Amino acid sequence: MAADKKKKKRRREDSSSDSDSDSDGDTKTRPFKKRLNPDSLILSTLKTLVANQNTSSSKTLTLADLSLSSTCREVSDLPLSSVQSAIESLILSLSHSILSGHGFSFSVPSRSAANQLYVPELDRIVLKDKSSLRPYSSVSTVRKTTITTRILQLIHQLSTKSIHVTKRDLFYTDVKLFQDQTQSDAVLDDVSCILGCTRSSLNVIAAEKGVVVGRLLFSDNGDMIDCTKMGMGGKAIPPNIDRVGDMQSDALFILLVEKDAAYMRLAEDRFYNRFPCIIVTAKGQPDVATRLFLRKMKMELKLPVLALVDSDPYGLKILSVYGCGSKNMSYDSANLTTPDIKWLGVRPSDLDKYKIPEQCRLPMTEQDIKTGKDMLEEDFVKKNPGWVEELSLMVKTKQKAEIQALSSFGFQYLSEVYLPLKLQQKDWL
Amino acid sequence: MAADKKKKKRRREDSSSDSDSDSDGDTKTRPFKKRLNPDSLILSTLKTLVANQNTSSSKTLTLADLSLSSTCREVSDLPLSSVQSAIESLILSLSHSILSGHGFSFSVPSRSAANQLYVPELDRIVLKDKSSLRPYSSVSTVRKTTITTRILQLIHQLSTKSIHVTKRDLFYTDVKLFQDQTQSDAVLDDVSCILGCTRSSLNVIAAEKGVVVGRLLFSDNGDMIDCTKMGMGGKAIPPNIDRVGDMQSDALFILLVEKDAAYMRLAEDRFYNRFPCIIVTAKGQPDVATRLFLRKMKMELKLPVLALVDSDPYGLKILSVYGCGSKNMSYDSANLTTPDIKWLGVRPSDLDKYKIPEQCRLPMTEQDIKTGKDMLEEDFVKKNPGWVEELSLMVKTKQKAEIQALSSFGFQYLSEVYLPLKLQQKDWL
Repeated sequence: MAADKKKKKRRREDSSSDSDSDSDGDTKTRPFKKRLNPDSLILSTLKTLVANQNTSSSKTLTLADLSLSSTCREVSDLPLSSVQSAIESLILSLSHSILSGHGFSFSVPSRSAANQLYVPELDRIVLKDKSSLRPYSSVSTVRKTTITTRILQLIHQLSTKSIHVTKRDLFYTDVKLFQDQTQSDAVLDDVSCILGCTRSSLNVIAAEKGVVVGRLLFSDNGDMIDCTKMGMGGKAIPPNIDRVGDMQSDALFILLVEKDAAYMRLAEDRFYNRFPCIIVTAKGQPDVATRLFLRKMKMELKLPVLALVDSDPYGLKILSVYGCGSKNMSYDSANLTTPDIKWLGVRPSDLDKYKIPEQCRLPMTEQDIKTGKDMLEEDFVKKNPGWVEELSLMVKTKQKAEIQALSSFGFQYLSEVYLPLKLQQKDWL
Repeated sequence: MAADKKKKKRRREDSSSDSDSDSDGDTKTRPFKKRLNPDSLILSTLKTLVANQNTSSSKTLTLADLSLSSTCREVSDLPLSSVQSAIESLILSLSHSILSGHGFSFSVPSRSAANQLYVPELDRIVLKDKSSLRPYSSVSTVRKTTITTRILQLIHQLSTKSIHVTKRDLFYTDVKLFQDQTQSDAVLDDVSCILGCTRSSLNVIAAEKGVVVGRLLFSDNGDMIDCTKMGMGGKAIPPNIDRVGDMQSDALFILLVEKDAAYMRLAEDRFYNRFPCIIVTAKGQPDVATRLFLRKMKMELKLPVLALVDSDPYGLKILSVYGCGSKNMSYDSANLTTPDIKWLGVRPSDLDKYKIPEQCRLPMTEQDIKTGKDMLEEDFVKKNPGWVEELSLMVKTKQKAEIQALSSFGFQYLSEVYLPLKLQQKDWL
């Protein structure tokens, strides 16, 4: 190994920091390790946090609280029987209209950007009250009206059978009519808005890709799941949230992780046993199932949610989708968003603070910088001065870094030093 | 609903088959339902299949059996301690070479296409014995030699700590040297070949995306998992196969599903309780973790594997990756491939046989047709005359169809009619 060691030494000399060798657990090569308090101290800090959480956020504001229920629109989770009767009433009123000689048309809430509103008090995007008429008797809307009727019929079928299907299944039941899946998907969102219920209430589910591990017990379709006993792979988050229930936990917080590499590190090290927590990831872009699951955990367990994302505009974007929703499903923001997510890391200021070596930082592309600047204008960033400061720093330094950049201090630096220190210092925004 | 019904009726008349309404479970709208035998009869058919499986395929051929061990190369699963000592011996021999004045160089097995061979008796791709020298003292190879040494050092570190990391983590430990991840990834494969062990043995894991549900018990990192009690979401397949063990099952077969939509249908309907089986999917392209997991199940449980893929060239391609490996990991084909996977469906001949409506079939693109024709030349297709016939039919008719196309006969047609009938008729190739 002699040649290799010599070479390593040479490289070290021109490197700004000791980026390798954590085989001896040397604190010199693992910055800040010596600043760590004993776990018991960190744990007692966290316990006060949960206590606060239980008292402070017990009341969630609604549109009605803000006197916005007449000007804004929201859907809610409805039981299957209500979906069924809502469809039946709708069809009945359409029949009346036809029989009385007025033909039939749907009144469809607009889902366009112009009809969307960010409500700071709610900290999420909602839909305003604009609607448009979709008459059967017009050449321009006859196809869409037919598709809407057909989707309503299919949803009614699902509700009588009490089964779940994917959007793809739905499309294939009548390819000739729908022509391509974007058409049936769009009308499905319309139907959600028309009936005033969530897409999950319609029993149409999206492919799930999230996993969860740690101090959580819950039931999935009648089976009781213990997420401390899910090995390293974890439990796949169920696609149908309505069959999830009985959540129990002794965790002190929920750790929301952007990517699966970091998730796997924490799962293998059983980080949740050292600091009682629930670890969840959607492996990149948040999917609907993971967003619903996170919200359900937050609401039922009343735990703080700490987010670990890449230090780039997309990390913050992902945080925002969990937190205040995506624009194309704003009609369902109440059910899909998790309020009060804290930005734990990796934050732009961490790069210097934790001495992330220069070579592990990446220069931002023009597109990155533009995205970052655009996000500075977004309401959900502006309402949090700490986030504005961090994002401004990112755009100014033009540097980004992935969570994995912490591996430059050793593979387990994330779970053994960085996260414990963050928790100890309550270093989140 | 009057207008809608009339419209539906009209559409039915010009449609080749009754593609909608399964609300009444009418056999007329669900072709072949009446041909189904009672489940008990189908089950007894399946039981004889498993019995045969246990006697016939107990012996798996190896390179040595074919006297190919000197001309072909394969890696094997090594315990961590062997990996560690292999690295130490290698470094020791390099030091000797340096001290005796010969400098140092690695002998690296070639992984190029020209050095690959499909062995029909093994039914998988293996690596031939060509190697090249990678000397430190040459300008053209000095960087790669340095990277190789560094990767060896990092792997040695993993082996002493007994932890798993991702390829991305590995890259970030020395970004300055590796420059970009393709370089560290490629050398990682080289190191596998040099040490003669699988990449999993090196404790470097890939992100996992597969899920499993059904009649399987196994241990994941010490936790016992019961896959009949995993609700609809199923159990995420662990990324580190070396921590998976103690597999037990009363299943009669393994159902390998290409996509998650079909997987979810079967999981929700608890298909595995009607026909005892294990259902597994990688949600599209097979990842390494799912391939290793499938092979382990097949080997330990000695169950037949039946594949349900789309009726297009990519469905067959996916089947082939599970079955005989991908070209860029052919050095590890023995561990990554599952022998004797049967093509259950959806097969090109099923489109007419099951009267899949014309509008649910899609025309193949030029690229599809080319891919199909190319695959007709592949050894793994040619050795199975049934496959050649099916693929030729696909290329001839220029039609493809997804598994979801079966939803045109009702959302549960897949689980209630198509699959039971396939099993009853032992209709696989």
